[in-house]
Amino acid sequence: MDAGVRLGEDAIRLAKAKTYATVVTLMPDGRPQAQLTWVDTDGEHILVNSPASTQRVRNIARDPRVSVLLVSPTDPMDRVEVRGRVIEVVRGASAAKHIDELCHQYLGIPYTEINDSDEERVLLKIAADRVVEPG
Amino acid sequence: MDAGVRLGEDAIRLAKAKTYATVVTLMPDGRPQAQLTWVDTDGEHILVNSPASTQRVRNIARDPRVSVLLVSPTDPMDRVEVRGRVIEVVRGASAAKHIDELCHQYLGIPYTEINDSDEERVLLKIAADRVVEPG
Repeated sequence: MDAGVRLGEDAIRLAKAKTYATVVTLMPDGRPQAQLTWVDTDGEHILVNSPASTQRVRNIARDPRVSVLLVSPTDPMDRVEVRGRVIEVVRGASAAKHIDELCHQYLGIPYTEINDSDEERVLLKIAADRVVEPG
Repeated sequence: MDAGVRLGEDAIRLAKAKTYATVVTLMPDGRPQAQLTWVDTDGEHILVNSPASTQRVRNIARDPRVSVLLVSPTDPMDRVEVRGRVIEVVRGASAAKHIDELCHQYLGIPYTEINDSDEERVLLKIAADRVVEPG
């Protein structure tokens, strides 16, 4: 699998901020499904944390192609679209630790304070194939 | 063509507010493309105004299936996803008049103040097939 293209500094900056990203996956019939979500980056990939038992996760297992739209929470003109593929689905303790880190970043509290269920989490690693700045 | 489902009061309320919507279309190879845009409603359809010569408009001419994610500008938990189809592409004076109305609504100024080109505009009428509230 090719490594894709670099995210670029705008995508990294927005993914590190308290940005709510729109993550688009493809339903079984090819229609798009769009959801708002917390977002993160390791500097090379967009990272999205999701409950394991969702349509979104089933979608990317069948077709890994996604689009992630990152929009600044303070300026809608400050945005970038990352089109790419989920190249890895991380499960277990790493994914659980990551959602706790995200919750601290976005809300300043442990994840267990907003969700005390034992739902399994997955961490989606997304490689960019194209990074689109607004026209 | 079937008329789809009702938008529901949340989608109508958000589409009438100064909401920036994410509109997802499908590229020729089936990948999703996501763009942030002004949005409107006639109470039955989601209305999106676009320059005519864009990838998005070419995409919906080939495959009219779209997703529109409406998120409140003040509360990211206040949101709704409308999955549906573009059932009509309105051109000419109606589309030009509509972008001017949208510009007044969002920015309080005539559209010619931010864009004095003679680009053709189109108004996309989107019928809902499914309206998804966040879990």
